Amino acid sequence: MDAIGVDIGGTKIAAGVVDEAGTVLSQVRLDTDPDNPGAIEAAVISAVAQLRRTHTVGAVGVAAAGFVSPRRDAVLFAPNIAWRDHPLRERLAAGIDLPIVVENDANAAGWAEFRFGRARAVEDMVMLTVGTGLGGALVLGGRLLRGAHGAAGEIGHMQVVPGGHYCGCGHEGCWEMYGSGRALTRSARAAAVAYPDRAGALLELAGDKKIQGPHVTAAAQAGDPLAIELFAQLGFWLGVGIADLAAAVDPEMAVVGGGVAAAGDLLLEPIRASFARHLSARGYRGELTIELAELENEAGIVGAADLARN
Amino acid sequence: MDAIGVDIGGTKIAAGVVDEAGTVLSQVRLDTDPDNPGAIEAAVISAVAQLRRTHTVGAVGVAAAGFVSPRRDAVLFAPNIAWRDHPLRERLAAGIDLPIVVENDANAAGWAEFRFGRARAVEDMVMLTVGTGLGGALVLGGRLLRGAHGAAGEIGHMQVVPGGHYCGCGHEGCWEMYGSGRALTRSARAAAVAYPDRAGALLELAGDKKIQGPHVTAAAQAGDPLAIELFAQLGFWLGVGIADLAAAVDPEMAVVGGGVAAAGDLLLEPIRASFARHLSARGYRGELTIELAELENEAGIVGAADLARN
Amino acid sequence: MDAIGVDIGGTKIAAGVVDEAGTVLSQVRLDTDPDNPGAIEAAVISAVAQLRRTHTVGAVGVAAAGFVSPRRDAVLFAPNIAWRDHPLRERLAAGIDLPIVVENDANAAGWAEFRFGRARAVEDMVMLTVGTGLGGALVLGGRLLRGAHGAAGEIGHMQVVPGGHYCGCGHEGCWEMYGSGRALTRSARAAAVAYPDRAGALLELAGDKKIQGPHVTAAAQAGDPLAIELFAQLGFWLGVGIADLAAAVDPEMAVVGGGVAAAGDLLLEPIRASFARHLSARGYRGELTIELAELENEAGIVGAADLARN
Amino acid sequence: MDAIGVDIGGTKIAAGVVDEAGTVLSQVRLDTDPDNPGAIEAAVISAVAQLRRTHTVGAVGVAAAGFVSPRRDAVLFAPNIAWRDHPLRERLAAGIDLPIVVENDANAAGWAEFRFGRARAVEDMVMLTVGTGLGGALVLGGRLLRGAHGAAGEIGHMQVVPGGHYCGCGHEGCWEMYGSGRALTRSARAAAVAYPDRAGALLELAGDKKIQGPHVTAAAQAGDPLAIELFAQLGFWLGVGIADLAAAVDPEMAVVGGGVAAAGDLLLEPIRASFARHLSARGYRGELTIELAELENEAGIVGAADLARN
Repeated sequence: MDAIGVDIGGTKIAAGVVDEAGTVLSQVRLDTDPDNPGAIEAAVISAVAQLRRTHTVGAVGVAAAGFVSPRRDAVLFAPNIAWRDHPLRERLAAGIDLPIVVENDANAAGWAEFRFGRARAVEDMVMLTVGTGLGGALVLGGRLLRGAHGAAGEIGHMQVVPGGHYCGCGHEGCWEMYGSGRALTRSARAAAVAYPDRAGALLELAGDKKIQGPHVTAAAQAGDPLAIELFAQLGFWLGVGIADLAAAVDPEMAVVGGGVAAAGDLLLEPIRASFARHLSARGYRGELTIELAELENEAGIVGAADLARN
Repeated sequence: MDAIGVDIGGTKIAAGVVDEAGTVLSQVRLDTDPDNPGAIEAAVISAVAQLRRTHTVGAVGVAAAGFVSPRRDAVLFAPNIAWRDHPLRERLAAGIDLPIVVENDANAAGWAEFRFGRARAVEDMVMLTVGTGLGGALVLGGRLLRGAHGAAGEIGHMQVVPGGHYCGCGHEGCWEMYGSGRALTRSARAAAVAYPDRAGALLELAGDKKIQGPHVTAAAQAGDPLAIELFAQLGFWLGVGIADLAAAVDPEMAVVGGGVAAAGDLLLEPIRASFARHLSARGYRGELTIELAELENEAGIVGAADLARN
Repeated sequence: MDAIGVDIGGTKIAAGVVDEAGTVLSQVRLDTDPDNPGAIEAAVISAVAQLRRTHTVGAVGVAAAGFVSPRRDAVLFAPNIAWRDHPLRERLAAGIDLPIVVENDANAAGWAEFRFGRARAVEDMVMLTVGTGLGGALVLGGRLLRGAHGAAGEIGHMQVVPGGHYCGCGHEGCWEMYGSGRALTRSARAAAVAYPDRAGALLELAGDKKIQGPHVTAAAQAGDPLAIELFAQLGFWLGVGIADLAAAVDPEMAVVGGGVAAAGDLLLEPIRASFARHLSARGYRGELTIELAELENEAGIVGAADLARN
Repeated sequence: MDAIGVDIGGTKIAAGVVDEAGTVLSQVRLDTDPDNPGAIEAAVISAVAQLRRTHTVGAVGVAAAGFVSPRRDAVLFAPNIAWRDHPLRERLAAGIDLPIVVENDANAAGWAEFRFGRARAVEDMVMLTVGTGLGGALVLGGRLLRGAHGAAGEIGHMQVVPGGHYCGCGHEGCWEMYGSGRALTRSARAAAVAYPDRAGALLELAGDKKIQGPHVTAAAQAGDPLAIELFAQLGFWLGVGIADLAAAVDPEMAVVGGGVAAAGDLLLEPIRASFARHLSARGYRGELTIELAELENEAGIVGAADLARN
């Protein structure tokens, strides 16, 4: 049975028809206004209707950033959209006469990698979505872990540095502040202040604007020592946290995705090295492998559709 | 069906017949020599035979500290006994003609709390065994999490302080070094050096020996400010780590057991306060409760027996 | 001999005639534009001329934030004014026919406390100026410590937390990020996000604006638990750093001044408690006292004048 | 005028006649018992008498580990000898009819480097004695800094890691725990547990004993990657603390001595790299140089003699 997956971002939605092999058969994208929840819902309903004109589907999965209720019908809190205890399924059901499932976007992406992507051969995996922030998903024993309150996988808010950088959540030292695109950008800007003599390549790429993540990636790929070091730091902290997850839930694979993962080995190698340095009892226990995600922008659509189907 | 649970400690084993309600019907204890694996196995076989003289049982569960193979037949590494890749099930099967399951001791204790103890009404829980070290077990969706390599629940080796206290595992800043009986004892001894003016009660209790954990508990129960502060520190770090676990796996309950938990509210209250301080997005998500374990010394026996039965 | 002290701030200058007892006999204040160095110099020259119409003075001391050359004639780097390797003395000498001395503003304030304020009875002191940032001055053996490169007393940039909050200097974990008005404000804002249930008083005081330092002071003085806790954290970190300074240079007194010190005991008591917790070998060595500054806004003028006179 | 310097160690004393150029003209060494203060004093008196048979001297300087009173006549606390508020000068004066000065041993060594060694051309320096522990001395404006209570230069007890390794002083995270021979040895042993696959060279050198500092030095000199990394870590932390001292007192030179400094560039290069990484406002201010000490075992004798002479 085919299903529709919808990925609701801060300023746009993407919806697609996904078959049982995880292939996206058709897709639409619409711009939305994060301050207008009603308009977002209308856009989702419209996108689904549009796709159904040419495809027969059996369910709709909707992925969004934020905390989703354990029954997967409501968004408890969304960081980018004005949703608080928002009954999203009920609202959408007014315009969609199909079973609807709401899921956290990182969970959807992780599920897609588990079912159809890099981790399709394993039973236990953790997904790290390294974008602006750091999202996560855990699949254990072949099941997506949702947690008792629907909040599992918020790995970006595990504390890695007591007294460390302030997170947007109001706490200090969250992993996200050390292992995300935001961390990379901020470290690069700080390095440009602290080590202006070493930041020439970055400053040139940025021109008269602030340094952004893609500048660091470009400089690192061109061999700039400071940019390479910044990726090494990012990888260091990602490796620390993966070792923590290995100690707690012992998965078979950690999949690294998200926009920053486009840097490839520049990021992956330092993660692996740091993980090997931090895993306790290494050599006396089996250990996970760390791999790049396969699916890219479509992971949210694919995972949401598949979760709705099952 | 009744089953036998065996808890193999460093210097003794305890074995008991456990019924389907988790009640220990009969029990034997034997001293053992941690440097003589053969003698330990003989003791287990002997204890099982002794119990079977008066009870009919269908399976034997064996719990031991260390890493257990995913198939639950071998001990990969034990911290206190000279076992390395040790085929424990096979060795025991030479003298026991029943199905045998090997399990990590903290996992067994956590399972017992989940099935028959404090967490019997929940589906998702994490168990913290705060003894000399810090052991853990995760039950998610009603299933004990073993991990892809049998090493799940080694929560004591999650890093909480970069550059922090050395752990016996060779790494710095492991949670166990901040949230265990060893941490309590070491902090107490350090405080006696750093603040001799405040350590009078502790030093008096210790007499001409070194301060031990029970001295701290006794002093705290008698109202000694420094001892109470030491428990508050211990609880602080346990709360930090529980908040990390809540972010990652979002259980419904955290159960605190082990010898140090005998301090009761002296420990529990600071844990709860610290957890509330460290949980990200508190108020926007459901959150776990933190409770003391119900089962005591028998948890390992009860859990091992029940795991073998199923 | 009377002397003139000039305190150059980011947006205004204050100048005063100071007698040998440290009394300000007359004072003028002028607004200035931090982006127009020439105008600042003209304002200083004008203020000095104005004061000299009614007073006879023998020297002029000029205090400014930033690094001052060892010969005290140039500003190497100023954080708030567009000065880089700026020959300030030479520029001012074009309009002032008196000996001129340039000094760092925190040094001037510390010297004033040493000569005429709280520390007038001691020979060895450290001054902490807890304003927006954290400035410092050391007087050792009765002499202001300028350092081999004129940069002594930059205590706000000692690292107290590896991997900690980013400082404007580009480094992580600088003391200033934990022991300053900026730290207080930022912690308050973070607490309002992390603990909205406890931040009612602060949020009410702030109204529809962001929480500012004075809101925290007002709330703490009114007994608000969160605000008191925020001052306790601030004091904690100030105490940590004072203990570090005690280990290194062992002064007789630490004087705490700057705008945040207006909170008085709300700040002082936690500093003292933290210092007592962190001083190594306490009880086996003499230890400094920690006191509030006596001189207030005029400290910079008084100190600069006195340094120029001698 | 020639003078005698005496260096009192835990298990032996060394005494020598030192001329005004810092040359040791004659020397004696005696074994002592740290638990017998009377015998130590008798040994010092005997050594001085022996040297005076062939040399005419004008003063005696005595250096010992521990806190020395501001008047330099008593040892307030010694870590290795049973001295508490011990009137050492008075006891020695019973057998020595010359002016006697008591000084902390790291201060004596630092003074020797300042007067006759690596730092003889500078006015402001900090000495780091990297032996088993981490001692220090500050010379500012050509004067040895003793501090208001005689306890200046205890830099090894500045905190560099909150919640870090326990120090013998009872506090956590002291610099000494990261920048000393003890730190090197402990890190090496931990690495051998955490990374047995990388510790082959170290374990072979240690044979059936525990790894010691000289094993790490030997392995590093032979190119062993793990040993080189351990020195890099040690240098990293020494650089962090030197940057802190530069922020506070801005010396012209940091001199690195003590037994571990025998490793030379293996230690010095990582210190310099780390210092450059951690110094705030680098490029906008002058900065110190970091050099190896010149005087070796005789530094304590030379410094004590010279301090007594002046």
